[in-house]
Amino acid sequence: MANLTPNSSFSLTLRLQIPNRVGMLASVTQAIATTGGNLGQIDLIEQTRKESTRDLTVDAASTEHAETIVQAVKALPDIKLLSVYDRTFNLHRGGKISIASRIPLRSVSDLAMAYTPGVGRICTAIAQDPNEVYNLTIKQNTVAIVTDGSAVLGLGNLGPAAALPVMEGKAMLFKEFAGLDAFPICLATQDTDEIVQTVKNLAPVFGGVNLEDIAAPRCFEIEQRLRQELDIPVFHDDQHGTAIVTLAALFNALKLVHKSIGEIHIAINGAGAAGVAIARLLKKAGAEKIWMCDSKGILSTNRTDLTQEKQEFAVKAQGTLAGAMQGADVFIGVSAPGVLTPEMVQAMAKDPIVFAMANPIPEIQPEVVDKNVAVIATGRSDYPNQINNVLAFPGVFRGALDCRAQAITTTMYLEAASAIASLVKPSDLDREHIIPSVFDERVVSAVAAAVQRAAREEGIARS
Amino acid sequence: MANLTPNSSFSLTLRLQIPNRVGMLASVTQAIATTGGNLGQIDLIEQTRKESTRDLTVDAASTEHAETIVQAVKALPDIKLLSVYDRTFNLHRGGKISIASRIPLRSVSDLAMAYTPGVGRICTAIAQDPNEVYNLTIKQNTVAIVTDGSAVLGLGNLGPAAALPVMEGKAMLFKEFAGLDAFPICLATQDTDEIVQTVKNLAPVFGGVNLEDIAAPRCFEIEQRLRQELDIPVFHDDQHGTAIVTLAALFNALKLVHKSIGEIHIAINGAGAAGVAIARLLKKAGAEKIWMCDSKGILSTNRTDLTQEKQEFAVKAQGTLAGAMQGADVFIGVSAPGVLTPEMVQAMAKDPIVFAMANPIPEIQPEVVDKNVAVIATGRSDYPNQINNVLAFPGVFRGALDCRAQAITTTMYLEAASAIASLVKPSDLDREHIIPSVFDERVVSAVAAAVQRAAREEGIARS
Repeated sequence: MANLTPNSSFSLTLRLQIPNRVGMLASVTQAIATTGGNLGQIDLIEQTRKESTRDLTVDAASTEHAETIVQAVKALPDIKLLSVYDRTFNLHRGGKISIASRIPLRSVSDLAMAYTPGVGRICTAIAQDPNEVYNLTIKQNTVAIVTDGSAVLGLGNLGPAAALPVMEGKAMLFKEFAGLDAFPICLATQDTDEIVQTVKNLAPVFGGVNLEDIAAPRCFEIEQRLRQELDIPVFHDDQHGTAIVTLAALFNALKLVHKSIGEIHIAINGAGAAGVAIARLLKKAGAEKIWMCDSKGILSTNRTDLTQEKQEFAVKAQGTLAGAMQGADVFIGVSAPGVLTPEMVQAMAKDPIVFAMANPIPEIQPEVVDKNVAVIATGRSDYPNQINNVLAFPGVFRGALDCRAQAITTTMYLEAASAIASLVKPSDLDREHIIPSVFDERVVSAVAAAVQRAAREEGIARS
Repeated sequence: MANLTPNSSFSLTLRLQIPNRVGMLASVTQAIATTGGNLGQIDLIEQTRKESTRDLTVDAASTEHAETIVQAVKALPDIKLLSVYDRTFNLHRGGKISIASRIPLRSVSDLAMAYTPGVGRICTAIAQDPNEVYNLTIKQNTVAIVTDGSAVLGLGNLGPAAALPVMEGKAMLFKEFAGLDAFPICLATQDTDEIVQTVKNLAPVFGGVNLEDIAAPRCFEIEQRLRQELDIPVFHDDQHGTAIVTLAALFNALKLVHKSIGEIHIAINGAGAAGVAIARLLKKAGAEKIWMCDSKGILSTNRTDLTQEKQEFAVKAQGTLAGAMQGADVFIGVSAPGVLTPEMVQAMAKDPIVFAMANPIPEIQPEVVDKNVAVIATGRSDYPNQINNVLAFPGVFRGALDCRAQAITTTMYLEAASAIASLVKPSDLDREHIIPSVFDERVVSAVAAAVQRAAREEGIARS
């Protein structure tokens, strides 16, 4: 964890008063460079005959690193640090989404149509034909993002309030990438029955439910029960979003090393929501040799502490992650920062593929092993090959809502993964480009089309 | 109910092909006038040498009336009706609100700040100091609009899906009038315990809860329990919003007839959520003689069928609404269409005040009694003196959220009513102008200021 790359999640704006003398600004940029800060934008705010006020945007690698940069600048003679502004905190202030009205309300006549008495006619129409709720309300385009705050990013059980910034961010992504209206539901309960009941009670407003950051094994039962009891699609993104994008990336990585999915040995570290869903989907896609590890090592048939989901993947082998890595073709990490060592990677088969997807800090920093692997991917936006759920969930829900699918199925996951993988043309396929960019505008429509096609084939599309 | 006024809740756009001959357009406008339709905008869409295509916007009084108008136009020789377009239905299509992202997501750097990994820093900050949820998330400006669909407008128990158009409309009003972000929560349960538990589970995301269209007497217990168990303001708008605006209107109507609130006889018809809340607030404001009626007549101490809330207002008198109206100075109706007869109004004291607020169709149509009363008010936007909750709830929540009030109290209701009434200057006060327009921009800030002042005086403001 020593070699973290500066990135915009620790981005500062330093406002400095700098004397107008030769070399003064250079002394500042030199000081920042020496501390390893990554200098971005430099804005001139004000200039007098004697002095300039400038805003310098600097990316740091951590909170401590940011403090080091600030101290280095403060120590410079004749330079005055006027303020330090944390760009990330400022961005989140007041929240990241808002409600917009789609209709102007400028006159009494607007009110009489949009609200009482006119709205009464719309209510009556829906009461008479319940399907009309899809035509005459927001339901057709609206997704609930439901969490209990029990597994927030890689940070653990922070509770519902601390989970809200993530759910707001997710709602932004739904909007920006798929034009969907998603709203955060952060529940003040971590009881399975109560979560299921609460989501069922909420369901009338929503066209779909995206479960998010709910800890395993609770998340499996919650998803399964909601799928049975609701007539709208339910999708636990930490499971299936991750699995879809991982499979898409693996399809393309295997092309680079000329191996086929049926013959490879895959080591998965992390047997939570994502790990289990990835293993299940890889199996469906043809993988035959999967060794999964949790924090106690390989999921072995000899162990007596395995949940139902973990038993599904128990193997005769036993040992630690290091053991599981011996001769593995592929490592898939959905676990914890820094648990993968360079020695473990050394022990892998020829042309190893490493997906180190722990968030926000990967199982191994790419800088450390980049030269020893055929392909490395992470979950981060500041390295190549980002295995990011945003490639899947916007298109999955777009497709499911557009055809009013009753559910989101394994066939849809497989189709979505193939659709994503196919967007990287053979001529563009490269060890630093196994997966499309999250800003590739073709992704959402390709995934949505694949999901719709699967829904129609399976006979679960309702429009 | 025969003399309904045409209004924009039954607004049609007729597209007509009309030969270019003298008197042809006049024959159309004449036909519409004869049926009693109210002609608005006329747009020329296309014109050839022989014909014109025009869109005529016509307000009708009911669905049947709209059909009569359409048939009258169809019957005209040489005029071709190309299409009929229901403006209200079209307005609601696809829903009336959407989610907007407050931050651009154009680059990998934007994503790294707004979502992972940057968002992890925000989550951690809230986990360490729970109060930060008010600074770093949408909670500070976000209201849940909660219904179980059991008392939708005056239409009854239509259920959660059919209630959604009203809740979306309410969210529009919150946004347009107070800049608040409100989201509809339409519950698939009408069980009191389950509603209370569900709302408590949802609360972390919201700065306040607006209960809406929940039937009495359940609504009283739900509000009371949520007020006790949540640390954010809970406000049942059908009760207190209606009570605040009714009291504001009454303050000003009494000025016109030179009567004081302590001396008048008030007949209230309707002992549901609104009726009970109005009676309670009028008492707090000094009213001493209130006779309430439900569908069985006067709430009498002799009756054995009264709920706890109704018992609160039981009087020695007994009889029907007609009896209660004998010599009454003020009628307040929050009941059902057409239940007030002109004879009952005749039996009132001198200078009678009639608030016929049933929605969407009043207890008596204003046209019928306008000349026999000192003041008449309704709940509708298409008559003068609209007693509309939109004068209260946006400012009430704006004030409560701005000072992070722990609750919304009776003192706030009284202060809000006075603030609304005081916006009608003595020189403007008139029998057709006892209450500000819903488009009067001073209202929300006056109410918000009154609520904040009350919160600080009562020591329940938290910022």
